[in-house]
Amino acid sequence: MSLIVQKFGGTSVGSAERIVNVAKKVGEFRNQGHDVIVVVSAMSGETNRLTELAREISPQPKPREIDVLLSTGEQVTIALLAMALESEGYEAVSFTGGQIKILTDDFHTKARIKEIETTSIRNEISSGKVVIVAGFQGVDSKGNITTLGRGGSDTTAVALAAALDSDECQIYTDVKGVYTTDPRVVEDAKLLSNITFEEMLELSSLGAKVLQIRAVEFAGKYKVPLRVLSSFEAGPGTLINVEGGSSMEEPAIAGIAFERDEAKLNISGVPDIPGIAYKVIGPVSEAGIEVDVIVQSAAADGSNDISFTVKRADCDSAKSILDSLASDLKAKKVALDKKVCKVSLVGVGMRSHAGIASEMFKTLAKEGINIQLITTSEIKISVVIEEKYLELAVRSLHSTFDLGDPNFNGEGK
Amino acid sequence: MSLIVQKFGGTSVGSAERIVNVAKKVGEFRNQGHDVIVVVSAMSGETNRLTELAREISPQPKPREIDVLLSTGEQVTIALLAMALESEGYEAVSFTGGQIKILTDDFHTKARIKEIETTSIRNEISSGKVVIVAGFQGVDSKGNITTLGRGGSDTTAVALAAALDSDECQIYTDVKGVYTTDPRVVEDAKLLSNITFEEMLELSSLGAKVLQIRAVEFAGKYKVPLRVLSSFEAGPGTLINVEGGSSMEEPAIAGIAFERDEAKLNISGVPDIPGIAYKVIGPVSEAGIEVDVIVQSAAADGSNDISFTVKRADCDSAKSILDSLASDLKAKKVALDKKVCKVSLVGVGMRSHAGIASEMFKTLAKEGINIQLITTSEIKISVVIEEKYLELAVRSLHSTFDLGDPNFNGEGK
Repeated sequence: MSLIVQKFGGTSVGSAERIVNVAKKVGEFRNQGHDVIVVVSAMSGETNRLTELAREISPQPKPREIDVLLSTGEQVTIALLAMALESEGYEAVSFTGGQIKILTDDFHTKARIKEIETTSIRNEISSGKVVIVAGFQGVDSKGNITTLGRGGSDTTAVALAAALDSDECQIYTDVKGVYTTDPRVVEDAKLLSNITFEEMLELSSLGAKVLQIRAVEFAGKYKVPLRVLSSFEAGPGTLINVEGGSSMEEPAIAGIAFERDEAKLNISGVPDIPGIAYKVIGPVSEAGIEVDVIVQSAAADGSNDISFTVKRADCDSAKSILDSLASDLKAKKVALDKKVCKVSLVGVGMRSHAGIASEMFKTLAKEGINIQLITTSEIKISVVIEEKYLELAVRSLHSTFDLGDPNFNGEGK
Repeated sequence: MSLIVQKFGGTSVGSAERIVNVAKKVGEFRNQGHDVIVVVSAMSGETNRLTELAREISPQPKPREIDVLLSTGEQVTIALLAMALESEGYEAVSFTGGQIKILTDDFHTKARIKEIETTSIRNEISSGKVVIVAGFQGVDSKGNITTLGRGGSDTTAVALAAALDSDECQIYTDVKGVYTTDPRVVEDAKLLSNITFEEMLELSSLGAKVLQIRAVEFAGKYKVPLRVLSSFEAGPGTLINVEGGSSMEEPAIAGIAFERDEAKLNISGVPDIPGIAYKVIGPVSEAGIEVDVIVQSAAADGSNDISFTVKRADCDSAKSILDSLASDLKAKKVALDKKVCKVSLVGVGMRSHAGIASEMFKTLAKEGINIQLITTSEIKISVVIEEKYLELAVRSLHSTFDLGDPNFNGEGK
């Protein structure tokens, strides 16, 4: 018998019928003798409905009142799920973030959890109840309602699992778990039964958006075993290991992530002096543009090329900034390529396996794909290539590194 | 400069646009230098939407969870109104019942207020803010969310006005105030500028459903001056006097109330012994049927007639109960009349004016209306008559007692 925290997102609780299904799933765990704490999001669509109401009233609502407003979404779900569990014959009790209480700092709409009081949860669990907690929300030290920002319910679940020293934190989503790559691109992409935290961090930040990166970091920090699985289909999902597997058995590559809709900017012939990267990247970041890959290469003649990628939607603004910098920096040229993408191999096994990078470059060369930028980290190699080659690159790399599902029979998943 | 509590119901805050209008109305009072506390209900339709969701999930949801669910309705409104006020340039802050806190007993879905902490409200008022409080809700001593039952937001407003010793509690509704009778029945019904608590109690329990009776009782008990006025039209509304007017100036009759859809039951020939009324009415009340007028008259032969009225919807159940009692009580006959109504004259001035009752009976006789039952209290005379005469009775009494609006020009109100 163990203590499990389960989190169900907005789609999983999107209707009365789905909430009843969640209650049945939770009930199965109770029947197996486990103690269960359930964290839920607002019903899908509800947060948008509330945000739209606020927008009709005020162009810039106060963050404090946005939190009062949006936190009602999860409060509705906890009550309905408690009713559904009782109706299925399980004792249940609901708590808002303030009732628990989940103490946060006072940064409204993006608060951080500071502490969780566990007394009331432990008491209710001891008396045999399923405890249902509103995700995404807390209170500051003055009792003001706060919310945790996007993906906050995942964070609530992991934080509760950590505070209660629970055996597992299960995040239910609309996918079966974490795949070697996007199954929509590579048909025989394989569901991973295990993955390390580092790999998950790289994969989730690179486009396999199964879990909020913040929740993964939190779980890694507090060593909470995290499992991603489907609300709608049976299956063990993917366990994100706290300690990492034994390196002997580790495959070199866990998966392939990719990012579409990138754009590449290049400023060439700038002087090779300290601080030049900051002079180029600084103004772009300050304009609120997220910079992804950054590559700098100094030429023998003492001049310098700096290339970086941004989201395609931001590329024209970034270009204007570079243009305005060009004469001050005595740059030769500013260039923009709007049609690039990024493909990354991710795997902690890279550390102990030589030759992964050259194998990757060989595979892409064989397909006639030109590599424009390369960056590497301990557990990741990313290349920026022409966007039209994205699918070809991902599929051929998936095959080269033998990531396919050996049981794949050609049917859809 | 005074301290005013204002309450806006569901219709007054039924859309983003209406919430902005409420903010403007509140702002006018701020501009006049008043301190304002605003109590709001859920947006119209919201409570039904939530109740329907609960019903889809469970036939008998737990009252505790119903309260968690329904209390979100008011929480949405407080946040939106705070945004609207800020957007209009007024500083505002919202509070849930739990945040204030409004301490209640633990009878979920029909809790009673025990105490209100006023520190945070007073602090925010001192700092120049409009304080917005969620109506209808509180917390019990363990921090569980409770709701106050139907009309609970009126109760919240009056209780806050009492706790803060405020100068006036204004209840905004969709009517301009309290009329001498229903303007849909009598065209020149007059808006009353003043009314006593006792009269208001009689009028609101008799069909002029402007205010919840519980809120009126509360206001009377704590001597809170209560004003009923319209959210949508300008005007001073009706002030419900704490102390009552001077009896010299009081008109004999304040207004005429009526109740449609009543049914009359009669059990005749029962023995004239102590406890007989209880033996008849007791089983009806215990079946959850609300009994209104009760008249008992003993005949000279030692037998007894008991008549009473109930809502028409309950009359068949009441009849079956009487039928089952009849042989035990040795009753001669049980009779049911489904088509009656009740008309009442209300006025504290009755105490000092003789002849009101006979004037009433004379008016009805002149119109050929037969009176079936009569009951009287200190400030009210009610008659039960055939339903088809309701409008005729109300109009002729309204005219007899000179209640019409002298400024009435034949246009609709």
